[in-house]
Amino acid sequence: MDRKVYLDYAATTPLLPEVINQMCEVLKEDFGNPSSIHHYGRKSKMIIEQSRKVIANYLQASIGEVFFTSGATESCHTIFYSCIQDLGIQRIISSVAEHHCVTHTLGELKNKFPEIEITLLPTDSYGRIENQRLIDQLNSNSKKSLVCLMHGNNELGTMHDLETIGAICKNHGALFMVDCAQTFGKYPINVNQLNISFLTASAHKLYGPKGTGLMYINNDNIIKPLFLGGSQERNMRSGTENVHGIAGFAKATEIAINEMELRTKTTLKIKNYAKERLLEISNVLFNGCPDHSMYHVLSTSFPASEKSDLIMFNLDIAGICASSGSACSSGVEHDSHVLKAIGHDPKRKTIRFSFSHFTTTEEIDFLVSALKSNCV
Amino acid sequence: MDRKVYLDYAATTPLLPEVINQMCEVLKEDFGNPSSIHHYGRKSKMIIEQSRKVIANYLQASIGEVFFTSGATESCHTIFYSCIQDLGIQRIISSVAEHHCVTHTLGELKNKFPEIEITLLPTDSYGRIENQRLIDQLNSNSKKSLVCLMHGNNELGTMHDLETIGAICKNHGALFMVDCAQTFGKYPINVNQLNISFLTASAHKLYGPKGTGLMYINNDNIIKPLFLGGSQERNMRSGTENVHGIAGFAKATEIAINEMELRTKTTLKIKNYAKERLLEISNVLFNGCPDHSMYHVLSTSFPASEKSDLIMFNLDIAGICASSGSACSSGVEHDSHVLKAIGHDPKRKTIRFSFSHFTTTEEIDFLVSALKSNCV
Repeated sequence: MDRKVYLDYAATTPLLPEVINQMCEVLKEDFGNPSSIHHYGRKSKMIIEQSRKVIANYLQASIGEVFFTSGATESCHTIFYSCIQDLGIQRIISSVAEHHCVTHTLGELKNKFPEIEITLLPTDSYGRIENQRLIDQLNSNSKKSLVCLMHGNNELGTMHDLETIGAICKNHGALFMVDCAQTFGKYPINVNQLNISFLTASAHKLYGPKGTGLMYINNDNIIKPLFLGGSQERNMRSGTENVHGIAGFAKATEIAINEMELRTKTTLKIKNYAKERLLEISNVLFNGCPDHSMYHVLSTSFPASEKSDLIMFNLDIAGICASSGSACSSGVEHDSHVLKAIGHDPKRKTIRFSFSHFTTTEEIDFLVSALKSNCV
Repeated sequence: MDRKVYLDYAATTPLLPEVINQMCEVLKEDFGNPSSIHHYGRKSKMIIEQSRKVIANYLQASIGEVFFTSGATESCHTIFYSCIQDLGIQRIISSVAEHHCVTHTLGELKNKFPEIEITLLPTDSYGRIENQRLIDQLNSNSKKSLVCLMHGNNELGTMHDLETIGAICKNHGALFMVDCAQTFGKYPINVNQLNISFLTASAHKLYGPKGTGLMYINNDNIIKPLFLGGSQERNMRSGTENVHGIAGFAKATEIAINEMELRTKTTLKIKNYAKERLLEISNVLFNGCPDHSMYHVLSTSFPASEKSDLIMFNLDIAGICASSGSACSSGVEHDSHVLKAIGHDPKRKTIRFSFSHFTTTEEIDFLVSALKSNCV
């Protein structure tokens, strides 16, 4: 069977034709080094600055607050280290259900800077922190604090309420860092209104290219660059800029903004259809918050059975691309740290299906029929 | 005048059509996240591993010693910090004429790790360190040392003798890190024969894409990743891989290996022709070592005159893209740290012309005639 049904849009997305065209044009025509002061250099520089403007407008940030990086992982790393080394942050509060680029980096910071207090708040059974716990934590001492949370949980789909949490941070004088890898370009984000100090995102979750990401850094927080060298990105990130990647990111963002309403509506419809159809399978449950959930992620928990142990394997054979909620390491599967955080029954098997406005009901039908006949 | 003559190939290079095609194909067809275990993920993973093989073969390294990054600047940063934090390096010996991503990073390391001895050796008037000084320095104490030098100097073209320096490092038990940004794919490099412990390079100097680089890390030196997260690149560099960039880098390397002899011959011929023609201008001198010089870089020193003050400006107006040997900051031009290192007369004006096998004698004629009529 050669048919492939891609239901893993939260892992990465196919690039839009317009994005590919834009990138290929830059690859062909605009090869200049943006640091060169001649014709070709200036042209590349202009592409970067126009791209920055697109991103800044979306976030309602100023242009000088947006910096391009190689991806959200680099952005997170840069911000965490700078907060400690440049801004005197003495405490970082995050959650147990964050992406590994946060949890693992915080683990390392704990070793490298033992004087820094690092707290990972537990989550409720939906993957959200309890706001009162955050308030209590912030009130427990007067250390200069950074709160770091993801906007939308990549495994569960659950969304944090940035407005409330941003206000809590503001009231307590804490900086607020938001991992928007899953939500950038999918939801309106006004960094000022939400009191966001730092934001990270990657282009490849938004029908843009891999290898390009960004960090928003609020003007009030002057941090030093991670990489030193040619002083690119207004001296915030040395290294010759990935011009075609940046142009592709901006194009993907531009289209995402224009289509936001339509994509939201269409994808949500597909997700609801998928939920409805998946419920035909006996004893299926959905993880994550039903009320505050990204429209493209559906974490689906299947009952234990002989077949469900091999569900990912069998889905792959059936041509269906989805993602296990578990990290697979040397053949032994464990529940992920996120599923553990929400108290997921380890005997059950969770698969994350993630959708796009391109996903059709027919693809969902194909999935459900494959699940029924081979997988569960 | 609309004609453009690009003589700045050491700053960056136009991408080869084959590289663009390869990248556009990956952008279109192979969007999977290499960490996904399904069909699309496996295909992307395969592209990365095949690319790694191309690079490893060129360097005569093993596949497990090559890691892709966002560029040489990231690679340098990663290696320096890891050498101190993971390998217990107590002394770093480099030169005053290295790229800023080395000199600035070493400056920062000096502040962050005051216990680390950092020595920047002076260079001779060609930009080469004197080997005896390196030996003396290594003999001066028994601290565990890293020697970091560039293979070919980006501003001068001067090349270090890696074989001799590699042997010195080996004899003194020092690790050897080589910045090959300007030479990767242009010269044969056998990391084992040259006793290289670490090597850094970028794709965009070799008719490949911006935003992709690499580090070679000899198997004997187990270092920790800079970025933590998804454990990509065999757990040496987290962050979703820039698959199309990596594929483009490998394609550019593949072609460079095949054409190495021809490119060397053709470009050297052009450089010699340029030298000959530039000498028609009164009192022109060339910086850098005449005997050990990269075939694509010609650092040209013009006598002081009213016109030569504006030489870069006038070349740009004439449609000629070259690079100043000077760093221009807020309108005030100073000699670069490299020109200072070789004792360049600050009253003279240095322009770096850098060539390609695509450069024609006719372009050189155009340059010389523009220089004669407007610039000097």
